[in-house]
Amino acid sequence: MSLVVKKFGGSSIGSVEMIRHVASLIAADHRDGAKIVVVVSAMGGETDRLAGLAHDIDGNSRGRELDALLAAGEQVSAALLAIALKKSGVDAVSMTGAQAGIVTDDAYNCARITAIDRSIIDRRLEAGCIAVVTGFQGVDANGNITTLGRGGSDTTAVALAAELEARECQIYTDVDGVYTTDPRVEPQARRLEQITFEEMLEMSSLGSKVLQIRSVELAGKYNVPLRVLSTFRKGGGTLITYEREGGTLEDARIAGIAFNQDEAQLTVRGVPDHVGVAARILGPVSDANIEVDMIVQNVGSQDGVADFTFTVHRRDYKRAFAILEKNVATLGAGRVRGDDGIVKVSVIGVGMRSHAGIAAKMFQTLADADIDIRMISTSEIKISVVVKERHMEKAVRVLHEAFGLAKEGLDTARGGGLHRADRGAKTG
Amino acid sequence: MSLVVKKFGGSSIGSVEMIRHVASLIAADHRDGAKIVVVVSAMGGETDRLAGLAHDIDGNSRGRELDALLAAGEQVSAALLAIALKKSGVDAVSMTGAQAGIVTDDAYNCARITAIDRSIIDRRLEAGCIAVVTGFQGVDANGNITTLGRGGSDTTAVALAAELEARECQIYTDVDGVYTTDPRVEPQARRLEQITFEEMLEMSSLGSKVLQIRSVELAGKYNVPLRVLSTFRKGGGTLITYEREGGTLEDARIAGIAFNQDEAQLTVRGVPDHVGVAARILGPVSDANIEVDMIVQNVGSQDGVADFTFTVHRRDYKRAFAILEKNVATLGAGRVRGDDGIVKVSVIGVGMRSHAGIAAKMFQTLADADIDIRMISTSEIKISVVVKERHMEKAVRVLHEAFGLAKEGLDTARGGGLHRADRGAKTG
Repeated sequence: MSLVVKKFGGSSIGSVEMIRHVASLIAADHRDGAKIVVVVSAMGGETDRLAGLAHDIDGNSRGRELDALLAAGEQVSAALLAIALKKSGVDAVSMTGAQAGIVTDDAYNCARITAIDRSIIDRRLEAGCIAVVTGFQGVDANGNITTLGRGGSDTTAVALAAELEARECQIYTDVDGVYTTDPRVEPQARRLEQITFEEMLEMSSLGSKVLQIRSVELAGKYNVPLRVLSTFRKGGGTLITYEREGGTLEDARIAGIAFNQDEAQLTVRGVPDHVGVAARILGPVSDANIEVDMIVQNVGSQDGVADFTFTVHRRDYKRAFAILEKNVATLGAGRVRGDDGIVKVSVIGVGMRSHAGIAAKMFQTLADADIDIRMISTSEIKISVVVKERHMEKAVRVLHEAFGLAKEGLDTARGGGLHRADRGAKTG
Repeated sequence: MSLVVKKFGGSSIGSVEMIRHVASLIAADHRDGAKIVVVVSAMGGETDRLAGLAHDIDGNSRGRELDALLAAGEQVSAALLAIALKKSGVDAVSMTGAQAGIVTDDAYNCARITAIDRSIIDRRLEAGCIAVVTGFQGVDANGNITTLGRGGSDTTAVALAAELEARECQIYTDVDGVYTTDPRVEPQARRLEQITFEEMLEMSSLGSKVLQIRSVELAGKYNVPLRVLSTFRKGGGTLITYEREGGTLEDARIAGIAFNQDEAQLTVRGVPDHVGVAARILGPVSDANIEVDMIVQNVGSQDGVADFTFTVHRRDYKRAFAILEKNVATLGAGRVRGDDGIVKVSVIGVGMRSHAGIAAKMFQTLADADIDIRMISTSEIKISVVVKERHMEKAVRVLHEAFGLAKEGLDTARGGGLHRADRGAKTG
């Protein structure tokens, strides 16, 4: 009999009605013969409420007591879901991290799972019972309650799936899968049946945040098939695997188009082409805790000087600009230029590793659409370009079209309402 | 160094501000050198909120999952109080029932504590730490979370005090002690410095509910000195002990005047004076789950027939009346009479055991005040009478005066505001 781990985030169990709905969904799969372990987050808003209470008492509250506090949120939702499952006529039992044998290190607030005693859950499953486990938490070796940090419920689900050798780890969210791009920008966006872990990581980090990065990495490490699917709409969701089934490295198919509107671009012109100059430019920026995303250095038109360009989060734009202006003289560089009206658009797909043609096609497509490319950066499975913000929608659409990602046939019938929830969806 | 167990109910920690206040109060005692174990209930209203969620899912929710759910409430308040204590500069650690080594039987929703591993808390206390333990809960031998039933936090506090051999178990409430009577009825009511367990039990069951009866019984069983005191007003509260210090059985002092407005009286007239007739009258009443309080049978004026009178809760009056009417014919009895406009007034004190004079004084006092006594019932440490409801205030006042319970000297300065909270205060 196959075992499935199902994880429901706070937005899937935010009310009594939703908990009832989730229970009916689980009960149906249980009647179909699956062994089921459920992992739940706290009810939507509950973790924030509890953290707010702690913050009102001590603005710097951290450590052991904060974890003991927050862990109560999942205990409530696990118990309520178990009650709802029993009411649906299937046997279920709630388990705290401690009760489920989930042991972590003692790094409160951001603990890592070190061991799971699978015999505890196994015993319940053998008895035909559904185990409803609190996500996001465990106990250290001394029995102190720990939490895995925000979004840790996904991590719990993946770790349990790995330990229990589950057929699949199913992450239920308010989106019905991973899309080729944001359907609000491109209505022709299509749900992917499958995506590789690496592609998913790139899609997540570029704005299509459906899963916690850490859980995706963990699933990859333990080769746990992850499936993202909707709590509220029927459908198979998107399966996340190592290699796309039926596909090979020769397959040049692109998984999707991602974009990020939160970036701003900074350029230092006329930088003397010395060893170590990049570090001298970025050092002070990094010292100010400003994260840098894309970095490009290209030889300028004059001999021995170059232009140095990078992107930061838009909220850090002004601070970064001021830091550069302060240092530009000591660098012997020319002028600082910046633009916070830019976006990053990326084409993602494992297939591109062996296909230089992808880049050429991307640039040509953008050129044909009269979209000026301001910056280019490439990695193993993605090509990112910076373009003016006003070109973003157009860039996404022409690339979506050029790489053949649009819906076909019946798929087109799907649409509208669902997509509104796509961006900004959070799990955990 | 002396150890004190302090218990704070939901109404003492209903908000962040109250939790901060309670922390400052505990921290002060800790700085004075006391070893302190704190037992907390869920924040005011939280247990009801959680139970409401469960009820919305399954109106008959009971058992294991309900306990796992409700236990989260205390986990939250214990963690928040520990955060507040640490913020106050004293070391504190929150503990769930499981973490504190509180083992119960497996009677979910109404479990009984079977063992406490005191070494766990001892270790924390030795380290100079305040242990903040969740009330109302424990774990069974298999690690399942159990709860002790409503008000169980008092029981947890008393059990810990007994196991840890605490000097005192201090129950903080929103009243500042046990009064000679309800100060809203008799403004001259005086806070008792001490009261015996037995008196307290009578006072509690007669409407001055300050403590859970079960915890008072438990404290008596293990000889744990209990102190009731206010979270919000300074003062020594009322100490509850076996025998009043300095008092003897010869001391005829009365502890207080209790009253109960929730009763109704029923009389079956002309009952044939057969063996077993009482059972035949009360059997059907009891079968209908109606609790009977006072019972009096007195020989009537005619030969061989008697009047049989008893009291029930006022909400059961009409049902009980209907049951009696239905059965009166088969009993061969006369008529059923009833009155739901009566109250029970009781004089309570261990001293009366050897003083028949108390009863005489009580009856004479009421007679002098033109108050008709409808029914009398006595026990070892109390004499109760039933009077018309309109006489209640007067009865309480004249008895309070007659038995010398009024405030004296400086005590009179205390008053007003506090007393409003006296009746109906709940702990737990």
